[in-house]
Amino acid sequence: MHVVVNAAMSADGKLSSRRREQITISGPEDFARVDRLRARSDAVVVGVGTVLADDPHLTLDDPELREQRLEAGKSEHPARVVVDSNARTPTDARIVDDAAATYLLVSESARFDRRAELARPSVEFVTAGEGRVDLLRAFASLQERGIEEVMVEGGGELIFSLVESGLVDELSVFVGPQLVGGRDAPTLADGDGFVENFPELTLEDVERMDDGVLLRWTLAE
Amino acid sequence: MHVVVNAAMSADGKLSSRRREQITISGPEDFARVDRLRARSDAVVVGVGTVLADDPHLTLDDPELREQRLEAGKSEHPARVVVDSNARTPTDARIVDDAAATYLLVSESARFDRRAELARPSVEFVTAGEGRVDLLRAFASLQERGIEEVMVEGGGELIFSLVESGLVDELSVFVGPQLVGGRDAPTLADGDGFVENFPELTLEDVERMDDGVLLRWTLAE
Repeated sequence: MHVVVNAAMSADGKLSSRRREQITISGPEDFARVDRLRARSDAVVVGVGTVLADDPHLTLDDPELREQRLEAGKSEHPARVVVDSNARTPTDARIVDDAAATYLLVSESARFDRRAELARPSVEFVTAGEGRVDLLRAFASLQERGIEEVMVEGGGELIFSLVESGLVDELSVFVGPQLVGGRDAPTLADGDGFVENFPELTLEDVERMDDGVLLRWTLAE
Repeated sequence: MHVVVNAAMSADGKLSSRRREQITISGPEDFARVDRLRARSDAVVVGVGTVLADDPHLTLDDPELREQRLEAGKSEHPARVVVDSNARTPTDARIVDDAAATYLLVSESARFDRRAELARPSVEFVTAGEGRVDLLRAFASLQERGIEEVMVEGGGELIFSLVESGLVDELSVFVGPQLVGGRDAPTLADGDGFVENFPELTLEDVERMDDGVLLRWTLAE
């Protein structure tokens, strides 16, 4: 399995404002790049915080990319995955519509009535972990289902947990031309944070794009 | 007056870990660049949080740069400035030793006994603002004292306040090859944060340096 985290942050490392309202950080060139990256993925993953804040659909915008997937014998869109320990995804969230298959990664403590409300033909539950999703086990279950190329689109809590679990191979970050500020604003990697043995990155590529810059890092094994 | 903010952040926008312990983010090439930038400045500014966390000296490391300043009829080191609303700088802080002149920017609420303890020939107080330093007035006072080229070295609370006050002309950020994470770790711009009308930046230059990248942004007027 190969896991790429893709995110856009402001020049000061924020994914959104302290109000968690989405901000346009990148531009058309980066949007097209993200769409192509999605099209090459078997699954696109977000945390439930991102579902609650942004209600993303995570499908492909470009009809040509959808066509190419169909011609290659794949599903029209990559699968969607929500890391959602307590099954808090709203029943009317766009990510659980029938446009694509969706995996909800939940923990054993996810309430049964919540699961029942979210049950539908396009949704499959993967249960791993007691109070919180055990990411290693849950991702291993995805791999058993044939998911090899994984793209993670945030938010910062999930990105930190995945890095902490050693699951991330690559990090693509668009750094945008604005300052957001805020000691409580979500950042690229939140969670408890590391205090020593900080994960080391290798800068593979630097590319100016839109009005910012795309940095591509890999993580050491 | 021309104000440049210079800082080094991790790939996820952190200045240090949640424990506020200093992290080596950049390397020798960036250190030398920062020393040259200091040498061209009339004053180097930090917030009191940085003084308390890191005890910086803010003098020039390179003897040649000191020599050049002396030959140009300047002081050996640029002046040091601490934004310190309540005069909390420790009396034994390196920044108030006699290696260079130091301005302590305080508010009217700074206790008189704290000021008395910090009084020494190399230290000058600039009082502006009631509970917090009025940055516009304080920086105007510095300008009246002949300070034109200003370099700000953090931390994130001060950087946010300066941007909010419209005092920042330029932002040089070294983005380093490590992940720090942490929803409570200090970031490049903390404070309350903006929720709309985010200050816009123009990316002037991108340069790979050490194992990271230096981004040079300017702020719109």
